[in-house]
Amino acid sequence: MELEIIKTTHPKNKPDFNQLGFGKYFTDHMLIMKYKEGQGWYQAQIKAYEPISLSPSALIFHYGQETFEGLKAYKNKKGQISLFRPMDNLHRMNRSNDRMCMPMIDPEFVLDALKKLLVLDSEWIPTEVGTSLYIRPFMIATEESLGVKVSSEYLFMIILSPVGSYYAEGLKPTSIHVEDQYARAMQGGTGEAKCGGNYAVSLKPYEMAKKAGYSQVLFLDGKDKKYIEEIGTSNAFFVIDNEIITTPLVGTILPGITRDSIIRIAKDKGYKVSERLLSIEEIENAYDSNKLNEAFASGTAAVISPIGVLTYKDKKMVINNNEIGKISQELYDSLTSIQTGVVANPYQWVMHIN
Amino acid sequence: MELEIIKTTHPKNKPDFNQLGFGKYFTDHMLIMKYKEGQGWYQAQIKAYEPISLSPSALIFHYGQETFEGLKAYKNKKGQISLFRPMDNLHRMNRSNDRMCMPMIDPEFVLDALKKLLVLDSEWIPTEVGTSLYIRPFMIATEESLGVKVSSEYLFMIILSPVGSYYAEGLKPTSIHVEDQYARAMQGGTGEAKCGGNYAVSLKPYEMAKKAGYSQVLFLDGKDKKYIEEIGTSNAFFVIDNEIITTPLVGTILPGITRDSIIRIAKDKGYKVSERLLSIEEIENAYDSNKLNEAFASGTAAVISPIGVLTYKDKKMVINNNEIGKISQELYDSLTSIQTGVVANPYQWVMHIN
Repeated sequence: MELEIIKTTHPKNKPDFNQLGFGKYFTDHMLIMKYKEGQGWYQAQIKAYEPISLSPSALIFHYGQETFEGLKAYKNKKGQISLFRPMDNLHRMNRSNDRMCMPMIDPEFVLDALKKLLVLDSEWIPTEVGTSLYIRPFMIATEESLGVKVSSEYLFMIILSPVGSYYAEGLKPTSIHVEDQYARAMQGGTGEAKCGGNYAVSLKPYEMAKKAGYSQVLFLDGKDKKYIEEIGTSNAFFVIDNEIITTPLVGTILPGITRDSIIRIAKDKGYKVSERLLSIEEIENAYDSNKLNEAFASGTAAVISPIGVLTYKDKKMVINNNEIGKISQELYDSLTSIQTGVVANPYQWVMHIN
Repeated sequence: MELEIIKTTHPKNKPDFNQLGFGKYFTDHMLIMKYKEGQGWYQAQIKAYEPISLSPSALIFHYGQETFEGLKAYKNKKGQISLFRPMDNLHRMNRSNDRMCMPMIDPEFVLDALKKLLVLDSEWIPTEVGTSLYIRPFMIATEESLGVKVSSEYLFMIILSPVGSYYAEGLKPTSIHVEDQYARAMQGGTGEAKCGGNYAVSLKPYEMAKKAGYSQVLFLDGKDKKYIEEIGTSNAFFVIDNEIITTPLVGTILPGITRDSIIRIAKDKGYKVSERLLSIEEIENAYDSNKLNEAFASGTAAVISPIGVLTYKDKKMVINNNEIGKISQELYDSLTSIQTGVVANPYQWVMHIN
């Protein structure tokens, strides 16, 4: 497939790179390509970031057939642009696409197109500490039909947004509500796919927790509400008696690339890392016996977000004095140093594109 | 709020009303109104059915915050247009909106606007037996943001589609696969809301069942995969030893308006109707002892769809000789007679609009 590049004739003013927030500003260009059953992908274009026009009966507006990804590009002071494990995102998107009955993308083609898009919009990549260019690939069902069905037509797009830290409070420890009524995912559902429904389901418990003064929600397993699963849109890590514990990939949680990177780094630093079921009861017991050392959430947007307070029913657990833990900080520093190119490329996770 | 009516200048050709299918054709006009936090609903318009233009960062394309409804309008040979329990749909939509953190609509305003839309497009309402005008209200999140959040902006729309029977095979009994791996909903999830994610999650098991020769999937409860919940996009009814049994509204199934109507009619006809948990094991036992009399799915689109064959793991259960059951047929006839105005309006369910 050819990739057509149509440069914008109306470049936009850039925002203040010290006041970016998350996902509020978008660059001058986007990637868009179309899919039709029997024809495959066609009409791949890099063109001006602009609205898309869809029929009100497009399936995306009715039955939620959509997948997405999130990754980041970094630029150093010399102007070198790098990506962090981009092929892992594109392969994960294809696993999500499979779950949602959506067509596969060609990771090589998309990566190549993404590189061209990044070079074209390279002035939009911020270089300040903590900033990056957030990359959002997504796919939506566009066939016009009200019958519940697998769409025969799709749009795949990549849009770019210069971002600061995901959490306004930065690396400050957050206060997390353990949700024991609402659930996010179950065995046989879509919990491990990066699809819209997983996020829509979490909005209400998140809003309720926010109103009660919490930053995020920790979801327990949908079956028994016993085992920890995810924290909002992130994976969950607990350090108990110096064992770093995170939920195994049992089909209900997102297989986070940040999660995977943290596990690898922590193991190489000599920590005991366990991917195993962890009940909220075990966390309570560890807390009561002073063995709950640290806790944090991990994800592309926030990288690592330490947990200062965890509240389950009536029990408020203050973790590590509501301060960033030693291991959390060490892992955050290690991972962001790799991502931003401060250190060399120990795991070949960083892909330089220019 | 004012409702502005802008008639189309390009009325479309109508399709062959004997070859409608489901949700493939759309009328000349649609209703659209906008919502903004702090401002409420504004700019309500009936205008030409046409594409809508949205930013690629509109939340609907990423996190699935969307709700919808489905109801039908009928027209008799004298040109009288009627709706079936429309306020129940609009109130249910508000319950879905609450679960998805979306703004309430004003049911009175929307019903009034819908009536005007129907009168304007009345020539699109087919009158042939089995046909109707399917009405699709839906709401989508339109704020431009990549942060996972409750949208501060929305579009609400109603589009209209003249339809034939939902199932191509009509009232012919269908073959249903009892799904024991994939799940649709869980306690604390969105199962009882009419939102996109519930349908997206069901596409893969549906596709797999279709490839294996089945018409639809019967989902078991997401927790233990033991109790029957829904059949594809419909509610499930089983007649065992002359007891009509359907899943209670426990939070994981859609509170169907057709379901509710069937319960009422069946009770008034003197049948024993039970809203209670029904395990697949009980169905198997009933089958083995020749007490599984009938089974059917119910929904707005198909009204009643009899089940001829039910397959659970290796067990194939042929129900009522793969023929439409007496009770299924009786309930179908009663309900459609009310809906289409063939009989009077015993429950005041039918609303005449002209």
